Amino acid sequence: MGNLCECLGNFFGRKNTNVRVSLPAVCFLWQIAMIVLFGIFVRYDEESDVKKWLELKESDNITSDIENDFYFRYPSFQDVHVMIFVGFGFLMTFLKRYSFSGVGFSFLIAAFGLQWALLMQGWFHSLDPVTATISIGVESMINADFCCAGSLIAMGALLGKVSPVQLMIVTLFGVTLFAVEEYIILDLLHCRDAGGSMVIHAFGGYYGLAISWVLYRPKLHQSKRLNGSVYHSDMFAMIGTLFLWMFWPSFNSAITDHGDGQHRAAINTYLALASSVLTAVAISSMSQKKGKLDMVHIQNATLAGGVAMGTAAEFMITPYGSLIVGFCCGIISTFGYLFVTPFLEKTLKLQDTCGIHNLHAVPGMLGGFIGAIVAALANEDVYGKEGLKSVFDFEGDFANRTPGTQGGFQAAGTCVAIAFGLVGGGVVGLILRFPIWGDPADDNCFDDEVYWEVPEEDEEEIIPPVLEYNNHMIHKHQDISESNFSVEQS
Amino acid sequence: MGNLCECLGNFFGRKNTNVRVSLPAVCFLWQIAMIVLFGIFVRYDEESDVKKWLELKESDNITSDIENDFYFRYPSFQDVHVMIFVGFGFLMTFLKRYSFSGVGFSFLIAAFGLQWALLMQGWFHSLDPVTATISIGVESMINADFCCAGSLIAMGALLGKVSPVQLMIVTLFGVTLFAVEEYIILDLLHCRDAGGSMVIHAFGGYYGLAISWVLYRPKLHQSKRLNGSVYHSDMFAMIGTLFLWMFWPSFNSAITDHGDGQHRAAINTYLALASSVLTAVAISSMSQKKGKLDMVHIQNATLAGGVAMGTAAEFMITPYGSLIVGFCCGIISTFGYLFVTPFLEKTLKLQDTCGIHNLHAVPGMLGGFIGAIVAALANEDVYGKEGLKSVFDFEGDFANRTPGTQGGFQAAGTCVAIAFGLVGGGVVGLILRFPIWGDPADDNCFDDEVYWEVPEEDEEEIIPPVLEYNNHMIHKHQDISESNFSVEQS
Amino acid sequence: MGNLCECLGNFFGRKNTNVRVSLPAVCFLWQIAMIVLFGIFVRYDEESDVKKWLELKESDNITSDIENDFYFRYPSFQDVHVMIFVGFGFLMTFLKRYSFSGVGFSFLIAAFGLQWALLMQGWFHSLDPVTATISIGVESMINADFCCAGSLIAMGALLGKVSPVQLMIVTLFGVTLFAVEEYIILDLLHCRDAGGSMVIHAFGGYYGLAISWVLYRPKLHQSKRLNGSVYHSDMFAMIGTLFLWMFWPSFNSAITDHGDGQHRAAINTYLALASSVLTAVAISSMSQKKGKLDMVHIQNATLAGGVAMGTAAEFMITPYGSLIVGFCCGIISTFGYLFVTPFLEKTLKLQDTCGIHNLHAVPGMLGGFIGAIVAALANEDVYGKEGLKSVFDFEGDFANRTPGTQGGFQAAGTCVAIAFGLVGGGVVGLILRFPIWGDPADDNCFDDEVYWEVPEEDEEEIIPPVLEYNNHMIHKHQDISESNFSVEQS
Repeated sequence: MGNLCECLGNFFGRKNTNVRVSLPAVCFLWQIAMIVLFGIFVRYDEESDVKKWLELKESDNITSDIENDFYFRYPSFQDVHVMIFVGFGFLMTFLKRYSFSGVGFSFLIAAFGLQWALLMQGWFHSLDPVTATISIGVESMINADFCCAGSLIAMGALLGKVSPVQLMIVTLFGVTLFAVEEYIILDLLHCRDAGGSMVIHAFGGYYGLAISWVLYRPKLHQSKRLNGSVYHSDMFAMIGTLFLWMFWPSFNSAITDHGDGQHRAAINTYLALASSVLTAVAISSMSQKKGKLDMVHIQNATLAGGVAMGTAAEFMITPYGSLIVGFCCGIISTFGYLFVTPFLEKTLKLQDTCGIHNLHAVPGMLGGFIGAIVAALANEDVYGKEGLKSVFDFEGDFANRTPGTQGGFQAAGTCVAIAFGLVGGGVVGLILRFPIWGDPADDNCFDDEVYWEVPEEDEEEIIPPVLEYNNHMIHKHQDISESNFSVEQS
Repeated sequence: MGNLCECLGNFFGRKNTNVRVSLPAVCFLWQIAMIVLFGIFVRYDEESDVKKWLELKESDNITSDIENDFYFRYPSFQDVHVMIFVGFGFLMTFLKRYSFSGVGFSFLIAAFGLQWALLMQGWFHSLDPVTATISIGVESMINADFCCAGSLIAMGALLGKVSPVQLMIVTLFGVTLFAVEEYIILDLLHCRDAGGSMVIHAFGGYYGLAISWVLYRPKLHQSKRLNGSVYHSDMFAMIGTLFLWMFWPSFNSAITDHGDGQHRAAINTYLALASSVLTAVAISSMSQKKGKLDMVHIQNATLAGGVAMGTAAEFMITPYGSLIVGFCCGIISTFGYLFVTPFLEKTLKLQDTCGIHNLHAVPGMLGGFIGAIVAALANEDVYGKEGLKSVFDFEGDFANRTPGTQGGFQAAGTCVAIAFGLVGGGVVGLILRFPIWGDPADDNCFDDEVYWEVPEEDEEEIIPPVLEYNNHMIHKHQDISESNFSVEQS
Repeated sequence: MGNLCECLGNFFGRKNTNVRVSLPAVCFLWQIAMIVLFGIFVRYDEESDVKKWLELKESDNITSDIENDFYFRYPSFQDVHVMIFVGFGFLMTFLKRYSFSGVGFSFLIAAFGLQWALLMQGWFHSLDPVTATISIGVESMINADFCCAGSLIAMGALLGKVSPVQLMIVTLFGVTLFAVEEYIILDLLHCRDAGGSMVIHAFGGYYGLAISWVLYRPKLHQSKRLNGSVYHSDMFAMIGTLFLWMFWPSFNSAITDHGDGQHRAAINTYLALASSVLTAVAISSMSQKKGKLDMVHIQNATLAGGVAMGTAAEFMITPYGSLIVGFCCGIISTFGYLFVTPFLEKTLKLQDTCGIHNLHAVPGMLGGFIGAIVAALANEDVYGKEGLKSVFDFEGDFANRTPGTQGGFQAAGTCVAIAFGLVGGGVVGLILRFPIWGDPADDNCFDDEVYWEVPEEDEEEIIPPVLEYNNHMIHKHQDISESNFSVEQS
């Protein structure tokens, strides 16, 4: 099938990257679908509906508005929101001529993804059996943002090699798969996964890797000149890194239990992240002549501790346990960038632009298993009888589950997340190989020019007319298809 | 009068942009005036004064400090604060050589504006009749930031064409007018306008447009080379866009009712903004050959949904209603950038640097009317009897107002805001035409050099070939150990 | 001793900046030490431990999880966290080729510093005498971030002249000294210092200045070409400035008393900062021909009001009092940049890259004395009897202290902070003079190349050689006025 696709795609000697029909069509149709489905299904929940909230206050004898879940979770929601749009968005601006796409496309797909996630997660987790409606509130918004994170992670592996239409498809299926695996892991297996080591990072990581593997481009080296950073683009990426790093404690504590649960998750994540920074710096420095640091490691591996604490953050992992997790994952992630990514590209034919294998897939998987171990070791001495119930939600059908069993289910949940990522990603990858989505040619990757009106560079001012003429001559030959257009513009 | 001004201004053949006397004088005198007026009028309110808070706790039987309004509103305040300084500030850095001014002047005028706003809003809304003092707390700070937003919006139309002294004057009158129209709209007409579609965006938008119209520069094309972006300046502007976009739910919910009011306003704004992104992208892509996206649209039109939800966010507009608002305003705003701004410049002689017409004026006006419609449609089935009272504040003098009447007043309020903007802006524009404020000549606009010590650019460009050659030689000798390595890398 | 050091260091004609052994060794060993010490000492406090929180709720009859300190302080913690990593980090990116180091090294030392601070502050302030353990919670995290700020301030004076290993040592001793002086000032002298004018800014400022004085480099002018900003690096620095400026109200209110204390501290800081902006702009404009503004002043002196309100923010300083503090400190700080820093470098042989003398040392010292005065003037009329007790913590051993006495102790505390900074900095400076830490040579300062893999720059790669030659020729002709200058620069 791949050959057929390539044939069709290259029929006229060059891939067609025109998305003037497909991108608006996808945006309009899907947005209209969202409006219709929201009209049918989505309502305010009892804490955001004025009538229901007044009734709830009376029935539950709530004396103060401060008891509204809004005040427990909204500050965390805003931090998560910043991570999704500025964190992920700017982290993906590190390429020298792909920053518009990095931040712009992540903006687009997250804005679509969060709407679709509200529906998908609503159908699976909170569909009212009587009214057939979904109630949304601040916790739904956090979960919707989480759900987008899975697709944004996958985008990291594909960065520079796909069209915005393909990214929309990645998100449509990514959010759908996410909601299903989340339902299986959290509801059926009754796992705990507050910060989503399993459901977000392991799933998102392997989902992106599988897609990228199917979309392997043997001649990608033709775009090699653009597959790297410049000084300023690395600085923009650091904005993304730091906002992810700083707000990760909010990410892992956003939907944990009120009170001690949120408090503990924030502390654990804070410590694991700090520890990751030191080991990432250490390995980065060791790996280069003269001990020079590599920005790629600082931008990414410093975050590994946060990924790996996604499941265990709400457990009583102890402060030094958190430090150990960060310590190990900072090392593993940096080694990944040094050795595993090049190895995967060479031997497995797997091109992973941002190295999500090292930042999300592996630390996410480890985080899942760390969570399993910490859960299995839980006992009443540490948690207290009530505490054990409250942390692991041993209630209803699961009232008799022991920590040991819970550990087993947590491990199983991790495997489910990975399986969903790999299989789902494989299928989505095949869909993306159809030659109609407007992806760039191999020598045209990592280039904003393909999908954006890019402003002229500073030179104009400096270069005098004669030279500028030459300059244009050169551009003319280079971008022959564009020259007509640029005349119109100027 | 215009001719006279120009004569005076161009007496020596060139405008005098020296602000060495006027700018420090304005800053010092106005700041001293602030100190004196604060000394006379401003006091801590009963939740921030230690004595009054202890008394209030006793008299109202408040058992916990968490009931202090600080904990209801401070996280939202900080988000709004980020929108004002980083959001508006960085959004205005998109010009290639006017980024210092974009972020620096917005910093200056907002820092002055918030002080003046505390006074003006205090006099109109919370002057104690007995002590003749104003009590301030966290809600006053949010309102003061809101008030600055009006002037910052106006600055968007004037960007690059006025001096910092003129911007201070725009702010002085902008805040004053704001406080008056806000008093009329919120207190006299008893409108609801939590996120300020009317009082902030429609007013600020038309205020800026009217000023810009009076200050029309027929020869502005002489600065055309600088009236555009470069790659990195567009990235800086995206920082502004994203922080505005992410924190807009906090903006629209910051001063709504505790509990369900804040909760609902955040949800509605979140949804409207997401919807705007998709339609802005769709129209942007449709408008260009090959479907390329334009950064101007992504930076601005994606925010239109937040502007348009400013009034209705706290109402029961329903989740899908919010999506529809965002859907329409994303389209209208992008069309504005494509067609209306060029049209206004050509036919109406209206130069609008940032396109505030499309982002604030029109969506703000629409937001006002959307609010009117949603208010008029309110009923007890949806809101409950108590809910209707609480959302629309049908109490005291207004106890007998019906939703239908309220809708009429909301629409009237929108017209008041626009009228204040247009008339006030016209008058302020005339004041700004006096040739003493240090504004730049037509061929000198959009240039930081006029008001800033701008650092020299990266040597590379400046160093002549011979030197550079030597330079390379030196590097060669110096980093002999590295040369092997760099071969490996490349 | 200095001569000996230089001899050893320059033995091979050039300083050895290879940190491939020392940097990883320091990171690994210190991180392992942290893990061991955390294992021995650190536990969750009673609000983050599930068992203890359930017990506490029962024993103290706490009905709602919202009473957990997490909800009082976590939003402020996140703001402080942003100030430490993005605020300080990006403020130090203003140099043209030292941005990686500015943001990267501050990231590294703060990540280490906060762990060490949790231990040091724990031992001094909250070591349980029975179990010999330290309990940590959200307030500990804020205090740990505060503690890092001291070392980050010191880094400002040293920026560009030291190796990352030296910065780690600065942090190790900085945090240690901080914990001791804080213990003396807050516990023994029983001073109040919520936002740390004394313990953070005065200490950190004089600590950094003393180190820099000991490390004086007479030939630093050899790196002069790199000791300045470019257009884009100034924009990155403005990100730091604005996040510091916006979140300073959270900084000064993060650990003040619940309720009115946090509320009042935020208001006071907000006002002082606004006032600083206007006077910094005024003095900056007055100091230059044609009234042009200098980015250095806008980036730094605008923050002076926040520093100076660090002690008095929680007191009843009144709103206009806050404006006056900001007014004066904005002026003093800008004058510092204009006159004092050059003077210190010439006469005192003190090289202060970021001008921390003007932003932290002096405003911090002034803030300490302002706090002393405001404390001494406190009385029951303004605070109420209970209020006086609660604001100044006149309880236990200090139940009989009067405001006047308190003022005296506050002033004494300021002196202690300065003394610790100067003496500690002197000793640490001597340690840093050992020629084994990998610091750069005098002609190699302010250069990321020394410690980072820096990516190639844009054009070079794209423009073909012939064109590039022409390009340079033209520059030569065009910028004839500049060529003289560039010779001076190089």
